Amino acid sequence: MKIVISNGRGFDGLTLEERPVPKPDAHQLLLRMRAVSLNFRDIDVVRGAHGNQEPLIPLSDGVGEVVDVGAKVSRFAVGQRVSPTFFPDWIDGQPTAEARAGRLGWPRDGVLSEYVVVDEHAAVRAPSNLSDVEAATLPCAAVTAWDALFVSGRVVPGDTVVVQGTGGVSLFALLFAKMAGAQVIVTSSQRAKLDRALALGAAHGIDYRAEPEWDKVVLELTGGQGADHVVDVAGGEGLTRSIRAARVGGTVSLAGYVAGRTGHFDLATAFVRKTTLHPLGVGSRRTFEALARAIKVHDVRPVIDSVFPLDKAGEAFERLASGDVFGKVAISLV
Amino acid sequence: MKIVISNGRGFDGLTLEERPVPKPDAHQLLLRMRAVSLNFRDIDVVRGAHGNQEPLIPLSDGVGEVVDVGAKVSRFAVGQRVSPTFFPDWIDGQPTAEARAGRLGWPRDGVLSEYVVVDEHAAVRAPSNLSDVEAATLPCAAVTAWDALFVSGRVVPGDTVVVQGTGGVSLFALLFAKMAGAQVIVTSSQRAKLDRALALGAAHGIDYRAEPEWDKVVLELTGGQGADHVVDVAGGEGLTRSIRAARVGGTVSLAGYVAGRTGHFDLATAFVRKTTLHPLGVGSRRTFEALARAIKVHDVRPVIDSVFPLDKAGEAFERLASGDVFGKVAISLV
Amino acid sequence: MKIVISNGRGFDGLTLEERPVPKPDAHQLLLRMRAVSLNFRDIDVVRGAHGNQEPLIPLSDGVGEVVDVGAKVSRFAVGQRVSPTFFPDWIDGQPTAEARAGRLGWPRDGVLSEYVVVDEHAAVRAPSNLSDVEAATLPCAAVTAWDALFVSGRVVPGDTVVVQGTGGVSLFALLFAKMAGAQVIVTSSQRAKLDRALALGAAHGIDYRAEPEWDKVVLELTGGQGADHVVDVAGGEGLTRSIRAARVGGTVSLAGYVAGRTGHFDLATAFVRKTTLHPLGVGSRRTFEALARAIKVHDVRPVIDSVFPLDKAGEAFERLASGDVFGKVAISLV
Amino acid sequence: MKIVISNGRGFDGLTLEERPVPKPDAHQLLLRMRAVSLNFRDIDVVRGAHGNQEPLIPLSDGVGEVVDVGAKVSRFAVGQRVSPTFFPDWIDGQPTAEARAGRLGWPRDGVLSEYVVVDEHAAVRAPSNLSDVEAATLPCAAVTAWDALFVSGRVVPGDTVVVQGTGGVSLFALLFAKMAGAQVIVTSSQRAKLDRALALGAAHGIDYRAEPEWDKVVLELTGGQGADHVVDVAGGEGLTRSIRAARVGGTVSLAGYVAGRTGHFDLATAFVRKTTLHPLGVGSRRTFEALARAIKVHDVRPVIDSVFPLDKAGEAFERLASGDVFGKVAISLV
Repeated sequence: MKIVISNGRGFDGLTLEERPVPKPDAHQLLLRMRAVSLNFRDIDVVRGAHGNQEPLIPLSDGVGEVVDVGAKVSRFAVGQRVSPTFFPDWIDGQPTAEARAGRLGWPRDGVLSEYVVVDEHAAVRAPSNLSDVEAATLPCAAVTAWDALFVSGRVVPGDTVVVQGTGGVSLFALLFAKMAGAQVIVTSSQRAKLDRALALGAAHGIDYRAEPEWDKVVLELTGGQGADHVVDVAGGEGLTRSIRAARVGGTVSLAGYVAGRTGHFDLATAFVRKTTLHPLGVGSRRTFEALARAIKVHDVRPVIDSVFPLDKAGEAFERLASGDVFGKVAISLV
Repeated sequence: MKIVISNGRGFDGLTLEERPVPKPDAHQLLLRMRAVSLNFRDIDVVRGAHGNQEPLIPLSDGVGEVVDVGAKVSRFAVGQRVSPTFFPDWIDGQPTAEARAGRLGWPRDGVLSEYVVVDEHAAVRAPSNLSDVEAATLPCAAVTAWDALFVSGRVVPGDTVVVQGTGGVSLFALLFAKMAGAQVIVTSSQRAKLDRALALGAAHGIDYRAEPEWDKVVLELTGGQGADHVVDVAGGEGLTRSIRAARVGGTVSLAGYVAGRTGHFDLATAFVRKTTLHPLGVGSRRTFEALARAIKVHDVRPVIDSVFPLDKAGEAFERLASGDVFGKVAISLV
Repeated sequence: MKIVISNGRGFDGLTLEERPVPKPDAHQLLLRMRAVSLNFRDIDVVRGAHGNQEPLIPLSDGVGEVVDVGAKVSRFAVGQRVSPTFFPDWIDGQPTAEARAGRLGWPRDGVLSEYVVVDEHAAVRAPSNLSDVEAATLPCAAVTAWDALFVSGRVVPGDTVVVQGTGGVSLFALLFAKMAGAQVIVTSSQRAKLDRALALGAAHGIDYRAEPEWDKVVLELTGGQGADHVVDVAGGEGLTRSIRAARVGGTVSLAGYVAGRTGHFDLATAFVRKTTLHPLGVGSRRTFEALARAIKVHDVRPVIDSVFPLDKAGEAFERLASGDVFGKVAISLV
Repeated sequence: MKIVISNGRGFDGLTLEERPVPKPDAHQLLLRMRAVSLNFRDIDVVRGAHGNQEPLIPLSDGVGEVVDVGAKVSRFAVGQRVSPTFFPDWIDGQPTAEARAGRLGWPRDGVLSEYVVVDEHAAVRAPSNLSDVEAATLPCAAVTAWDALFVSGRVVPGDTVVVQGTGGVSLFALLFAKMAGAQVIVTSSQRAKLDRALALGAAHGIDYRAEPEWDKVVLELTGGQGADHVVDVAGGEGLTRSIRAARVGGTVSLAGYVAGRTGHFDLATAFVRKTTLHPLGVGSRRTFEALARAIKVHDVRPVIDSVFPLDKAGEAFERLASGDVFGKVAISLV
């Protein structure tokens, strides 16, 4: 089978290699991968930002068809389409150090491979309404967005949700918040992206280049109250602004550090508003199952930016690293 | 001003009387009532089922225009349209014995009156998209339904919600569950009512006369899993069926006792399914405010069965007591 | 190795047999069982009350020493003392039908055996302060009690907790509620048992034979408010009394059906008090880990009624079935 | 009556003045204040740090005897000892902008006065086991600590709780966490204060001057897991250390900014540990009632540093501002 190997030295260091197809053990599934997708985290991994320079199969997100099962497997059958979970041992409930140790795509080998073996307890059925490429985008960004809104947070109909930008987590948060009857405000520095977000159902778009005090715009749009929930992907100095944009007793989910790896925020503001801050970190298998069901029920489609073939994996990474994407960058393996 | 007085001796005992318009104290509002609506509880009150035979102004639900405010009032202004809350002192959070003591329409005087004074902390702005009659239906049934789904329960998109029948709480639960991205299954003994519920957005209707084992139909419709949430309004012997219709770890809200005032259920079934039972009891002011906002955002309209004038109040009670209604029975005071 | 087999035909049908010691697979542990303990559920199983008459190794609760581990085991090492979990696949979070299907002692083979293999994800370290017999009592009754107070319920310091009787779940609930700073009221029909409960730290004992309206005594003891939490093990007709003994907004956990397999309760009372009812059903591995840690930190000891040798297993069942026990009935295998 | 007035220009600007005793309106109580106590916030107010230079009666915390009640008062009676709540209109549930606007001691007049009128819904009975001075310390620091552990957080027996320093919130958090069966680790720069904290029941003390990497000590003390809950009062650059000291999925409560008004934290660390951050902000009346009950049940006494007479109010402020206190600084008015 073909696999792609990263040596942690950048996109040029990705190499296509040939390996024997692995065998599932008693509780494992063998998947013929059909599509995989990229997250910003994968760029860091391939660039060696974690200090990793050992050969590794990158990427955590994908979907494959079950082509073989171990002798004791009971949860899945050959022919089904499933995705491995980001944290193979986080089934439900609170995160634990143990469950969070073994994530795919680093430090464990990931899914950029024609075949993958996965523990049966670490897999979720793909929603049947999605194409392979669409289904491949769920394990990391969609799970993170669902956790933000319905596990860490608790969005109810009529709530206002602010999502920063139009990256993977933000677009899923937009789709899921809409499903839940919330109104969504999207911020972006590009009018064209705001227009696309509005077309996806956002109620308002704020161009934060034109309106650097975007938190005040959120207050105006919410009658001075602030949003019930803010999904912050910037981090850095802007965190106080996210807190100001949230209502008293609201929540700010932290899902990225585009603007700076250190979060800075004014404590006095946080005390006055009593805003809970939830750093996100993907989620459990149960969270994945919940969103997969909702995607099927609502026939919602993840937004796809572009699809590359396996032998152009490096170009897929470059595309995402350019920052100028709208939706998920994927690689098809079929 | 005109008021209606009940002596607890039935609908015929309702009398129209004349009283002086009351004055608000420093923290009170004077409302010119525009419409009121009925709940099954009010039938019991007027029939003296609580042992009450002292003269009383019945009904808890209504909406009025603020026509005068006390000297220290800060939350509302003259000209606004507001509803009194069912429990005047339950602001937010958990119920308390103290807050639940003073409910409108019994033991406190209710709203079947041209003018009503209300504490400013015990009032909620009416959603501006609703007519007076529509707004008058919210304080009891809508608050109960919202509490069931989002306070006692926790509905998320993709969930399945079963509502029994098409009474006030059930129809609001249908509308709210839809808003939240859930699929709704409605049970009824009348095909015509099921058709109307389907027209309101229910995904499935079950005629429980044709299908007395309706819990099995719910299991079929949910792939054998059961519904995430069941709103039971029957009580009596059928409670075990509601528990069987709910998934493992699901919730059953209890909102009535149409089929019997004693709830009976099989404990072994409850242990196997680990179903939480939530007896409902209206909700807090904050719950009311949340649903009022959602109704506005989604421009959802309560279902109205019929409207009577003030001097035909007895007929309104008869109409509801007939049981053959679909939606709320209201009385207009303008 | 020696095992005990039940044919579902009663205590006399228990037979001691000889079998080869099993081998752990890659993710399994082999335990040399040191002690096991009995629950009322096991009596039903051995009597065939579930319709089961196939040969089965009974009992869910026990502790053993790890004497061999599969090739991929990472969570435990040889020499450690561990207990299998009641539901091998319920790790954390909400119960699921899937996770709750495979419980030990029926329908799966249980632990009344010199050696047992267990999946490494289905085991918990025994608290080091406990003897083997004490540690063997935790998997079912202690987990149920912890779930009642801290997972389904939410006991805080200063709360009042009522526990019915002095069975396994009730005594653990007494010990755990004390740890959490709550005041405990115990009910029993025997003064001697109340005295022992008081010696264990209960604040009050109510002899419900002398005081059949024990709910009124609870109201008196709580200044008319009612208890924050009631652990009901009786079921049957007494359920309304448990609801009346709980405060408005309180919770009643259902943990048994000593007084009747059907729970009956007055719905009007439940609506007025808005009491949440939680049928219990053991709990997750995480719940077990939480209580094991607390038992160690507080050096609390489970109450042991009596200990029997392996070849007197039938007598252990008779002892528990007599009903006249105080604490857990155990069997030592060493 | 005598009152103390602050002009926002520092401790020297505090002046003792004479005013007529106010009259309660229909829903108000008149309190003869018996003792009041200071928080760091009050120092800021008296120094004009909020930009306030209008004359104001400072201090939010105190206890008084009800000496008169308005005509409609039903919750309290003359002769009872009660404390005003910090946020007069926050009864229960989530905070709101409206309820949080009107806090005592700034912007509303506070309690450094012989008589105070208070709305009956904004008062809580003092625990009968406390002296006046002890009871006067609860409204702000104790409510904040209880909210951290049992409302924002959810401490259970066997948990580990880290409290930074020995200020008001930290000492209450120590006492409450102990009540709840948790183990408490206290940090301080002074060995003598650590010894006093150990005498109050802390399990461990860490001298963070000797051990600047105190988070590593917490990890050692918790078997590498981290504490379940950290109460951070420092803010500033140390926030990442608090996050590192907490377990995966743990919570860090933010209760002060002794080390810097801007909180800085490493987002990558927060994502890996998925730590929830809860900026605190006192709490609701219900929170106050819960802790008052627990203090009574456990007969726990707040730690008093020093007591000053009314005419030495400035010295009380200087004492607290010195930073070298252990427990609360109070002023007696009797």
